[in-house]
Amino acid sequence: MLLLVDKILGAAMAKRKTKRPNTRPSSGPDSRPDSRPGSHPARRRGGPARAASRDRAGGGYWLYGVHPVLAALANPRRHIERLALSPEAAGTWGQRLRQERDARHAGLAPESLDRRGIESLLPEGAVHQGLAARVAPLEQPAIEDVLEPPAGTEAPAPQRRVVLLLDQVTDPHNVGAVLRSAAAFGAGAVVVPDKGAPEESGSLAKSASGALEAIPYIRVVNLARSLDTLKSAGFWCLGLADEAPRSLADSDPADAVALVLGAEGGGLRRLTRERCDLLVKLPTRPPIQALNISNAAAVALYELLGRG
Amino acid sequence: MLLLVDKILGAAMAKRKTKRPNTRPSSGPDSRPDSRPGSHPARRRGGPARAASRDRAGGGYWLYGVHPVLAALANPRRHIERLALSPEAAGTWGQRLRQERDARHAGLAPESLDRRGIESLLPEGAVHQGLAARVAPLEQPAIEDVLEPPAGTEAPAPQRRVVLLLDQVTDPHNVGAVLRSAAAFGAGAVVVPDKGAPEESGSLAKSASGALEAIPYIRVVNLARSLDTLKSAGFWCLGLADEAPRSLADSDPADAVALVLGAEGGGLRRLTRERCDLLVKLPTRPPIQALNISNAAAVALYELLGRG
Repeated sequence: MLLLVDKILGAAMAKRKTKRPNTRPSSGPDSRPDSRPGSHPARRRGGPARAASRDRAGGGYWLYGVHPVLAALANPRRHIERLALSPEAAGTWGQRLRQERDARHAGLAPESLDRRGIESLLPEGAVHQGLAARVAPLEQPAIEDVLEPPAGTEAPAPQRRVVLLLDQVTDPHNVGAVLRSAAAFGAGAVVVPDKGAPEESGSLAKSASGALEAIPYIRVVNLARSLDTLKSAGFWCLGLADEAPRSLADSDPADAVALVLGAEGGGLRRLTRERCDLLVKLPTRPPIQALNISNAAAVALYELLGRG
Repeated sequence: MLLLVDKILGAAMAKRKTKRPNTRPSSGPDSRPDSRPGSHPARRRGGPARAASRDRAGGGYWLYGVHPVLAALANPRRHIERLALSPEAAGTWGQRLRQERDARHAGLAPESLDRRGIESLLPEGAVHQGLAARVAPLEQPAIEDVLEPPAGTEAPAPQRRVVLLLDQVTDPHNVGAVLRSAAAFGAGAVVVPDKGAPEESGSLAKSASGALEAIPYIRVVNLARSLDTLKSAGFWCLGLADEAPRSLADSDPADAVALVLGAEGGGLRRLTRERCDLLVKLPTRPPIQALNISNAAAVALYELLGRG
């Protein structure tokens, strides 16, 4: 089976392996993401919160599924330790994988595994579609790095700058879905408190469907303090609250918005709520009192960024 | 523990049980939802598709979690066979449960079970919050019943009539989340093909968070034929497609819209697509090509119904 993958992914791989045997960093505890080539200088500042979460995560994890794995291969900032694929996936995605590998991950040697072999690497029930990649967590920027619009992105600048903050949203599927919508509508970052928010993981990345590679996911020690930072930089702080009297569409928001969503049921914590310049709601009809968190985020981002 | 539940739910229950021992229909195969009191006449027409799915479902299933169980108790059309709750849930929800039970399900005797006892009734991993209810599937209306706006609903009529059709969306969590947003924004119904779409179930109802009781969930044999029915009744057929040239916000939709969403990745099938008067997209920025299905539905419904 390795022969099949080699044939599909191209013989160039073998030559590179011979010439640069140590290009691919080891996956052991001494692997230092900071030292890898191609990592953007602005992305290296992590601060104590990021360092703490990195220690807790204990290093790498497995991405799985077509979108997360292809997006990771397309991301020059992503360090990929291993790439496992089924013969079927190699047949379908071989050309694309070869291009991405050659462009950004030249030392990476793909491993051919059947579906069961891939399953043995992943959490039970993971929908892997024949692709899995062992990766190091991304080096995320600090909140100070997202106060200005990023330079040199491929899409035109959105009409408004929006940073999304999630207060007490703990489910990785919800956070992943929010990352996907936030990237789709052009938000600048998704910010979460280090305590309680999910780490980067295969299930978060699967729900994000590639968006984890496309938008900063920033963990901070104190969400209220991050709101202060954003407000000092001219961001207007909008909190989403089911009981707010005014709807988001009527709120006439500023050109830079820090949008805060709380956990379903719990809402915003007092310290977060007190920082908000305005609380707004999304219109819902009885007996439904609220949208689910990822749908609320998508609708709010559409209202702020997406209508064109 | 039964004593505690009795105390909290009120002694009136015991008297009712003595006076009307056969009020609560049996949960056996002879239990006929059609014959139960309080079912709305317009909801009884099911057609062959509904009958077929009822047979396949084999009768009742367990709802679980605070929102699905409370919403079922608040729904006079819902036949509840059993109600199980933990002592903690009885303490928190006792008064509300008593009111709902007395108003609509007078013969229902709650059973007190600890968390493990409730878990033993449910699929593994079900987040039940101490509440579970064994129910019969709802009698859903036929598509002909939702062509006109419903009379006597508690909320004011929405600005536009929208019926949402899901083509090949198979995941119960996705369909449940769509039901929730559809009810929240005031859509008239969610229509799915009988083949491939998920049955009413505990996990679908959990994702719908009570919305399964609030909006018709209609299974049809042929989705394309249902679109013809809707178009004959004056509905304008809008299909959501990532590759469409025009955005939904620029589509100037009619006052009655049949909105069709396809499965993620697969999109709309040819027969469905050919029925559409217009294909529209939601704006997303590269590298993200599409929103997830429930977020796309929420955003589209917000654009059509929710901005106010």
